[in-house]
Amino acid sequence: MITFTKPLAKLIEHFERFPGIGPRTAQRLALYILKQPEKTIKDFSQSLLEAHNNVGQCKSCFNLTSELECEICRNPDRDQKLICVVAETKDLLALERAREYKGHYHVIGGLISPMDSIGPELLEIKSLVERVSKNEINEIILALTPSVEGDTTSLYIAKLLSPFTKVTRIAYGLPMGSELEYVDEVTLARALEGRTDIL
Amino acid sequence: MITFTKPLAKLIEHFERFPGIGPRTAQRLALYILKQPEKTIKDFSQSLLEAHNNVGQCKSCFNLTSELECEICRNPDRDQKLICVVAETKDLLALERAREYKGHYHVIGGLISPMDSIGPELLEIKSLVERVSKNEINEIILALTPSVEGDTTSLYIAKLLSPFTKVTRIAYGLPMGSELEYVDEVTLARALEGRTDIL
Repeated sequence: MITFTKPLAKLIEHFERFPGIGPRTAQRLALYILKQPEKTIKDFSQSLLEAHNNVGQCKSCFNLTSELECEICRNPDRDQKLICVVAETKDLLALERAREYKGHYHVIGGLISPMDSIGPELLEIKSLVERVSKNEINEIILALTPSVEGDTTSLYIAKLLSPFTKVTRIAYGLPMGSELEYVDEVTLARALEGRTDIL
Repeated sequence: MITFTKPLAKLIEHFERFPGIGPRTAQRLALYILKQPEKTIKDFSQSLLEAHNNVGQCKSCFNLTSELECEICRNPDRDQKLICVVAETKDLLALERAREYKGHYHVIGGLISPMDSIGPELLEIKSLVERVSKNEINEIILALTPSVEGDTTSLYIAKLLSPFTKVTRIAYGLPMGSELEYVDEVTLARALEGRTDIL
């Protein structure tokens, strides 16, 4: 097997540590870097440090921001009496792409998972309870992944928040465009369980 | 659509310019960066600049190296009378992964493509002819992609080098494990054309 010249090997190693980047993609990215003009690489390197140093968490909802509060929390057009609870920023982004939700968020930073020693104290749940108890909130929508960890976390939060406000969770069911025949049993069972009136 | 906080948006833009990286992957990579310890990001940033500044081309074969000559050219165990011509470093890497070839290389840096205004003078073909005319070479193996551009380039090089030495090209045919039924017509025609004696 060929061994790369040292600075190149080191760069490939860095890329390999990225999520979803295998050895072949890492090689391709590193070779791409070598072909770029020096300015591009300096800018990229600068941008990495800048983003890392300047982007932090919103003080209310823990979304990413370089200000004290994130853009969503500062937007007066969004309903601040509605909070959607998500595990990670990427889930918030997915919901924003759907362009359906116009309320605020609370990013708890993960899911309760005893197997990975992640208890509720490691998540932004305390801050959520505080936020809900101190403000007038009409509804909390839980948008966590349908899994053991997601359901556990939803249940845990629902118990804590139901004294203060209405708590709902997003629907589980058939994905749009799916063929009933190929949908897995668990999803089908959940879809049946969650059936709603048509008229 | 959500707009990212500026330093994050800039970083995502950088990642999006990478080959094979779409907007979603770029977001994922940028979010990954934000989660890393500062040291990792500093090291990565350093590694980018180092690789970019220190890795250049081998003076004999134009492979990537941080020395004057690449590791393959410096390796006394490799047959220097055998040169395999490839378009890009990534093709050289693919051949090295096959662990079959033990000669030297010549990376010409692309393929002749009048459509993209790439003429032979933009490629390392002159240096190849010089190398072949000045050294005792037993065989030149052309390993360029089977395409109009690849074939044109192979033919061009073969005409220039055949006065000096034997010129061959790697075989075109059925890929291992393929089902005859699903192989495209052009490949099948090439495979028939290139048939060899069994015994």
